[in-house]
Amino acid sequence: MNYSEESLKMHEMHSGKIEVISKVRIETRDDLSKAYTPGVAEPCRRIHADAEDVYKYTSKGNIVAVVTDGTAVLGLGDIGPMAGLPVMEGKAILFKEFAGVDAFPICLDTKNVDEIVRTVKLIAPGFGGINLEDIGAPRCFEIEERLKKELDIPVFHDDQHGTAIIVLAGIINALKVVGKKIEDVNVVVNGAGAAGTAIAKLLLSSGVTNLIACDKPGILYRGMAGLDDAKKELAKITNPDNIHGTLADALVGADIFIGVSAPGIVSQEMVRSMNPDAILFAMANPTPEIMPDEAKAAGARVIGTGRSDFPNQVNNVLAFPGIFRGALDVRATEINEEMKLAAAHAIAAMIKDEDLSENNIIPNALDKSVAGNIASAIKKAARKTGVAQI
Amino acid sequence: MNYSEESLKMHEMHSGKIEVISKVRIETRDDLSKAYTPGVAEPCRRIHADAEDVYKYTSKGNIVAVVTDGTAVLGLGDIGPMAGLPVMEGKAILFKEFAGVDAFPICLDTKNVDEIVRTVKLIAPGFGGINLEDIGAPRCFEIEERLKKELDIPVFHDDQHGTAIIVLAGIINALKVVGKKIEDVNVVVNGAGAAGTAIAKLLLSSGVTNLIACDKPGILYRGMAGLDDAKKELAKITNPDNIHGTLADALVGADIFIGVSAPGIVSQEMVRSMNPDAILFAMANPTPEIMPDEAKAAGARVIGTGRSDFPNQVNNVLAFPGIFRGALDVRATEINEEMKLAAAHAIAAMIKDEDLSENNIIPNALDKSVAGNIASAIKKAARKTGVAQI
Repeated sequence: MNYSEESLKMHEMHSGKIEVISKVRIETRDDLSKAYTPGVAEPCRRIHADAEDVYKYTSKGNIVAVVTDGTAVLGLGDIGPMAGLPVMEGKAILFKEFAGVDAFPICLDTKNVDEIVRTVKLIAPGFGGINLEDIGAPRCFEIEERLKKELDIPVFHDDQHGTAIIVLAGIINALKVVGKKIEDVNVVVNGAGAAGTAIAKLLLSSGVTNLIACDKPGILYRGMAGLDDAKKELAKITNPDNIHGTLADALVGADIFIGVSAPGIVSQEMVRSMNPDAILFAMANPTPEIMPDEAKAAGARVIGTGRSDFPNQVNNVLAFPGIFRGALDVRATEINEEMKLAAAHAIAAMIKDEDLSENNIIPNALDKSVAGNIASAIKKAARKTGVAQI
Repeated sequence: MNYSEESLKMHEMHSGKIEVISKVRIETRDDLSKAYTPGVAEPCRRIHADAEDVYKYTSKGNIVAVVTDGTAVLGLGDIGPMAGLPVMEGKAILFKEFAGVDAFPICLDTKNVDEIVRTVKLIAPGFGGINLEDIGAPRCFEIEERLKKELDIPVFHDDQHGTAIIVLAGIINALKVVGKKIEDVNVVVNGAGAAGTAIAKLLLSSGVTNLIACDKPGILYRGMAGLDDAKKELAKITNPDNIHGTLADALVGADIFIGVSAPGIVSQEMVRSMNPDAILFAMANPTPEIMPDEAKAAGARVIGTGRSDFPNQVNNVLAFPGIFRGALDVRATEINEEMKLAAAHAIAAMIKDEDLSENNIIPNALDKSVAGNIASAIKKAARKTGVAQI
């Protein structure tokens, strides 16, 4: 199937993908008087008297804003807020289809960090959560950090944490397949943008001790010239021996390669230099860092990509719907590290031990039972960490 | 029926009134690849190459933001953005039910004019139109004026213009009933807030020459102390003889009273001082400026109120859905004076001459055929004035 052509047709057929509908009927004068004036004054009064009642009488508690500035849309880069809209609408319908969460695209006509933070705060009264999307690094880090501090609803940058959660889920299962322990493995993450940084941090939270992050200039190390604050921070918490060198140098003796970088930059020779039973997540889209058959031929054991036409698709549609479902259900004030780890373990646990294999470490992206399991895990972790309000 | 109790029940049953759904199915891997990655990249690319394509491939062209700061919600006043949400959701579902327009509430956590203008501009890429709602006067005037100048999508403050359009429609028909001409009548508008100011201006655009505006301190006149800029402007274009005095003074010899003010402030004696065949639109909610039976007993001929339990309900649900339907359909860059006049005449024309009577000057608020007629009139007027883009 030619997805580009078919996608254009699908988008043109209805002019876009989302619509806003009523949950109540408006047929009679009484309906109108209850849903609108004069009756609607009473829910307004109640919320004015007790702000908590906004969750009782409005849709706020089930609505997430999908916020972008259009600066890092898919692999297309900075195409602007209007051109990013098809992705945001896509995200919105996946929220609804997979987890019953109502989501609405907010495409911001600014790249200024202060303005983005301020605007999201100003529109927050109508939303139960904020999903940041396709905002370029390093701006995305500061935006998320500030919004998390200043808002009392969950704020989640999916390109960072959604991806990191699925990767961790896949790694948990891949390690079972190869019989290694997370504390013992050498991990290389290539691509120190939004996703790579979050993946590195979540793996460190999960017990990985030896992790090296690489970016275009090679291995990130403490004291390296030309790093922005986010990459300096990453160099500080990774690369324990502070080695210097190229991606090829980093891969020598590595157990796991995680690529969120560029097509074809991993060679078979590099794979051969890795430890036996190597795990590769080559997630560059649409062409991976190395094609799965080449990696296999060079000795790799478990290979994941971002593509649906190979086994082990790392697709964050598996994560974000259930994560927000759980967070909204307990009215969590944030989505913290424990909740992310719980989500990853819930995804990993979807593959039963007897079904686990080199080609089956991650559930199918269309498996709608995943979201419910994640939501349960998220709720439990939110309650345990004291961020659940109900 | 106890509308307050019933309304609370309705709002609690589903937690609010709106939901965001998908216009396309997501059942198979192919569906996912068309609606989301990798297929969605193509509509993004097209829009990036030609911004006009945003109307072809996204929902922007049919989505209106219902924007409030919660400062003038119904008769409740400044109750804040969250407490205003039930009204905004109500508005959103009426847009959909009456005209197929998708509308989404944006409740802003600021009262600052600059911030409101800036925020609406920043979120505008995702919307085809902006409906301002329940923003207090005089801030609403500046906000609307600036946004109209700075945005290329229609911006419409419904409390002003929606109300004014219905009032004008009612006046056109009421004048037919009493056999007077719009050029000849003396009009008094009481309440110089958002609605009163817009009503006065639209009546002047429609041929009224003698119009007096009153507010709490009495008749507005040029040189009056303590007026804000909006009221000074209103005093400049009304009250041709620049008379001073009270509402009672203004009503002596008046043909039409239009109240958007406070309960019970018009006495029978005042009505008796008006010209024969007086027309009164007493729209204070829920208790009118004078009750219809008292006004009738004092000699008034045609009486309208904001209530559904009396004849001639002035309810702006009649206007805004059709207005935006028409504006979106021709991708109008604004909603101008000619379009408003056209909408008012379209509403008035819904009552055929043979059905016209003292108790039947305005179509029923639930008559879903009104929106289509308004939309046609709006489109024609938009084309005529050169603001239609398609």
